[in-house]
Amino acid sequence: MALELNITVLIGGVGGAKLARGLAEVVPPPRLSFIVNTGDDFWRYGLKICPDLDTVMYTLADIVNPETGWGLAADSSAALDSMARLYGVDNWFRLGDKDLATHLLRTQRLREGESLSQVTAHLSRQLGISARILPMTDAEVPTILNTINEGKLPFQDYFVRRRCAPIVQSIMHKNAERAAIPERARAALLNADALLIAPSNPWLSIAPILSVPGMRALLSRVRAPVIAVTPIIGGEAVKGPTAKIMRELGLRPSAAAVAEYYQGILDGFVNDSRNPPMELPGVQVLQSDTLMRTLEDKIRLAQEIVHWIEGWLS
Amino acid sequence: MALELNITVLIGGVGGAKLARGLAEVVPPPRLSFIVNTGDDFWRYGLKICPDLDTVMYTLADIVNPETGWGLAADSSAALDSMARLYGVDNWFRLGDKDLATHLLRTQRLREGESLSQVTAHLSRQLGISARILPMTDAEVPTILNTINEGKLPFQDYFVRRRCAPIVQSIMHKNAERAAIPERARAALLNADALLIAPSNPWLSIAPILSVPGMRALLSRVRAPVIAVTPIIGGEAVKGPTAKIMRELGLRPSAAAVAEYYQGILDGFVNDSRNPPMELPGVQVLQSDTLMRTLEDKIRLAQEIVHWIEGWLS
Repeated sequence: MALELNITVLIGGVGGAKLARGLAEVVPPPRLSFIVNTGDDFWRYGLKICPDLDTVMYTLADIVNPETGWGLAADSSAALDSMARLYGVDNWFRLGDKDLATHLLRTQRLREGESLSQVTAHLSRQLGISARILPMTDAEVPTILNTINEGKLPFQDYFVRRRCAPIVQSIMHKNAERAAIPERARAALLNADALLIAPSNPWLSIAPILSVPGMRALLSRVRAPVIAVTPIIGGEAVKGPTAKIMRELGLRPSAAAVAEYYQGILDGFVNDSRNPPMELPGVQVLQSDTLMRTLEDKIRLAQEIVHWIEGWLS
Repeated sequence: MALELNITVLIGGVGGAKLARGLAEVVPPPRLSFIVNTGDDFWRYGLKICPDLDTVMYTLADIVNPETGWGLAADSSAALDSMARLYGVDNWFRLGDKDLATHLLRTQRLREGESLSQVTAHLSRQLGISARILPMTDAEVPTILNTINEGKLPFQDYFVRRRCAPIVQSIMHKNAERAAIPERARAALLNADALLIAPSNPWLSIAPILSVPGMRALLSRVRAPVIAVTPIIGGEAVKGPTAKIMRELGLRPSAAAVAEYYQGILDGFVNDSRNPPMELPGVQVLQSDTLMRTLEDKIRLAQEIVHWIEGWLS
């Protein structure tokens, strides 16, 4: 265990959560913080849904559905099925019955005046998680995709309903200018010995975090090195539409293009050994096997990264 | 079928719903209206729960749990179980997973600004119900029980959590003075050829309806006869705490005491043949078998009552 380091991770959903799971075995969880993308959050069925917060939370609590990487293991869907069957509700956004417990409780506490940071801290505590799970902001900053044929699509419409099929022209973070970094997230950024950017989709998962006013400035100002882990292996994303979106935005899907995207805040980059070696001015590069299939893979990668950081900081 | 009569029924939950089910076979449903008690309504898990509206709705849609008389048939409880197991929520008020569809949709539409009358009309329509199900008011008029040992208890705390054990001193209808009869309910009362008071608990289910300002005056003013069906058979209620509450309020549990309670608005009374015959000045009495165990019982009683009213009005 790396007893001395405080590590804070910028993170999205399923891809990033794999590394989170590994880190929780390598770094004592109280020294681990996750600044989580909330650009995917939305209201549906009268409930506030926070997909990435839940994925990180369920993963760290070891209750995530192992087949999908999101949702709860062994869940049913009686409530959503009944919505459609009894009341004709279009239930394309699926929520399991067990999973509803989270959305109901979160929505109730938000309605009662708690901030998303407070609610998330409560839910995590109840789930026995001692790492800090921190929303990037308490405001609502919905990601909107500007697509060629279907115009502006809210994130879940694009991602779930349309299964990422529409061609993306640009991505907006609505109301980002009015958002703020919550106090706990700011503290986790300032107290970190190293900042990681998880192998999440840079445009869909990390960009929303960077869109919160003050975030980029804070990341380029902190003493702690900022280190990104590539979400691209061999020109493709392990999961999700990262490569497709890069092509649509006119970029060649490569780890180098991702590193370039993070230019200005990056001190280190964990590249996959299947990718061409990289050279970036001012950025240290670790070549590693970043593919995480098993728990052992996750722990091994986390260990390698943490050892690299330790060597760097000592 | 009694093609000519418009019948409007003041009604509570399970007991009254049995008669509602029978009436729907005897009176063309578009001529049937139900003014439903909402004094039992409350917020729980961030959801607006309307037990009596749901019981009437589920019963008329033939999807009610036949074993309990409330909730949906063949329901599961993964969401509520998970609330307790994952988050330590006290889930004494049980809601099935399928049933959650109703509460989620109702809560969402209320939050979006619809009135309870509008939401109920929408839900009923989707369930294929052509009878009108009308909340007694769109305001929140929670029933509070003043008990001897446990002080003031909100209805569901008394009824579900404490299983009607505390001794009742008096019953309050909070904020009733600010409530109003919704337009649709008023129309159903004014257009009725006969008004029935279902065999529901007079103090817990019918009193809240009568507490809505203008309701008593309207009932004593309408031309249509007002006819109550006894909830008491042989000195006991078929179900629920009616007899217990009567004793606690210093009344002898009897059909006569129920009729007396409705004094001033009553023109007819359907007494059970097991009860002593009744004589009440200005009130016509029908002796009948009011016990409803099977669908046949429900239809037979509804038929008898409707024929009695037809003879009366012709």
